[in-house]
Amino acid sequence: MLNNVGPLKEETRERVLQAAAAVGYVPNALAQQFARRKSGNIGVILPFMPKVRLFSTYYFSEILSGIGETAKRCGYDLLLIFREQDGARDYANLFRTQKIDACVVLGSQDVPEERAALAELKAGDYPFCLVNQRYDEAAYATVDADHVSGSMEAVRHLLEQGCRSIAFINGPLQYSNSTDRLEGYKKALGKADIRYDQELVYVGNYSRKSGYELAERLALHIKSGSVDAIFAANDRMAIGLMQGLRESGLEAGKQYAMVGYDDSDGSSIISPQLTTVAVPFYEMGKLAAARLLDHTHTSEDEDTADSLLPVQLVIRETSIYE
Amino acid sequence: MLNNVGPLKEETRERVLQAAAAVGYVPNALAQQFARRKSGNIGVILPFMPKVRLFSTYYFSEILSGIGETAKRCGYDLLLIFREQDGARDYANLFRTQKIDACVVLGSQDVPEERAALAELKAGDYPFCLVNQRYDEAAYATVDADHVSGSMEAVRHLLEQGCRSIAFINGPLQYSNSTDRLEGYKKALGKADIRYDQELVYVGNYSRKSGYELAERLALHIKSGSVDAIFAANDRMAIGLMQGLRESGLEAGKQYAMVGYDDSDGSSIISPQLTTVAVPFYEMGKLAAARLLDHTHTSEDEDTADSLLPVQLVIRETSIYE
Repeated sequence: MLNNVGPLKEETRERVLQAAAAVGYVPNALAQQFARRKSGNIGVILPFMPKVRLFSTYYFSEILSGIGETAKRCGYDLLLIFREQDGARDYANLFRTQKIDACVVLGSQDVPEERAALAELKAGDYPFCLVNQRYDEAAYATVDADHVSGSMEAVRHLLEQGCRSIAFINGPLQYSNSTDRLEGYKKALGKADIRYDQELVYVGNYSRKSGYELAERLALHIKSGSVDAIFAANDRMAIGLMQGLRESGLEAGKQYAMVGYDDSDGSSIISPQLTTVAVPFYEMGKLAAARLLDHTHTSEDEDTADSLLPVQLVIRETSIYE
Repeated sequence: MLNNVGPLKEETRERVLQAAAAVGYVPNALAQQFARRKSGNIGVILPFMPKVRLFSTYYFSEILSGIGETAKRCGYDLLLIFREQDGARDYANLFRTQKIDACVVLGSQDVPEERAALAELKAGDYPFCLVNQRYDEAAYATVDADHVSGSMEAVRHLLEQGCRSIAFINGPLQYSNSTDRLEGYKKALGKADIRYDQELVYVGNYSRKSGYELAERLALHIKSGSVDAIFAANDRMAIGLMQGLRESGLEAGKQYAMVGYDDSDGSSIISPQLTTVAVPFYEMGKLAAARLLDHTHTSEDEDTADSLLPVQLVIRETSIYE
């Protein structure tokens, strides 16, 4: 820690040491060096879900792969920070303690603690980017996909197959993801002059289990004829639900039609193959990190703009009657 | 940066500042504080494979989920560091620059650069743990699974089904993983008094594509009767190969038997369901991190011991003739 700028008597050095120690002082230049030191890390804030193997979910693994790709290209390491379930969310402290130089926020939810944490980042002018979550009144940098159009496409497709009573399995409404899908579902029905019926809307938590648990109720509706199709807000819930309905003797593409969302790996290897909406999660991760790290590609305008990537309906077997 | 330990004249402070700045000195206590500062990060060294979405592979995603679980429990964040494909591997520098306090090394390969990097970690007494890779002559802390037994079980099961010409699709031999599987394959044949035939051993790179690409050659052998079963060193290669063989009109469980390895998500949702060997990757990740971070559970002995977790054959449809 001795930066010898010239010859110095040991005695002098010793005196300076003692004086400096007494006041607990760090020379200005050094203090600044520490203050400005780049960590070389891009942070990724992730939800912590004790029983979920986060990296094994298509959603997070694809986004992380995309972020990793850009981070590697730009010479950054990836610091993964699990969000505290309850309690304070001090994201700004990650910058103050120089753990990270920028951060991508995943699984952000519209709850007061999260709003406060993001507002603090913004106020401190710390670079961050949200993925797949928007806060309407706040101009935060966000990368999202067009889930309103994607959901409209999914429902329109089911209507084209002749379905008229389309149940909708949504996720929790604190995700803008979920509210977007609900909007698309309603719009598609509206365009076809079909009344929106709240009784047909169910809420899971995007897990396979939550889809499976709805099977019993939906089996009754399908058998009684009050539901002829299901649109699920993600593939995991769709797959869980199909599994549960199979146990009641109901097969997608036979007794009912099913459309999922995400185009995860599972959707194309299950049987029957799941009709779904492809979301470019990998590209979203790449783009979010590039907006923070790759300054050659970013203009001032883009810093706060909302990037909305297109999605695409992928028609497979579960929505086509044999 | 002023740590007022008591009342101090502004003038005195000023003089100390100047003197300290002149010698570029940091008081000892402070220097030590910086030197000893814990980053609060556990590093995870990962391979970087440009076209592979690393987090979307069952292997890495499960191990990372396990590491993340323990890291969270012990109050650490996860720093992911992508290994340079070529060139120096300066893992020790991550410790010297206080980016990490400990690290788990994934996808380690027996090549000179990797050996040198690990030897430097060991020499510097930096805490690290390997997962799924052993270096026979070096006593590095390692968490592995018993792939010799797993492979023996897989082959024994195929022999019990009456198969006699079992092709083996292995991964590259610089992974101890691959050499373990080859050993198990040979041992099982030896016990059944079947001659080991090198012609029946193929090498892929653990990707689905590398399995798919072997399909043409294996289709000929299956049709000519010189191969009646296949043991693949992971599920991805098995699934790619089954897909390719299907294009030649060959179905697992009909014209040939197939056993994969890993028990990945895909193996139970494809049709026919894949017989495979379940590896506790999640638990391996948890254990590797716990050996580094959770000092309440670790004895001195365990620090360098090789933890070998059990694996289990899961019999499904691809190895049972209808």
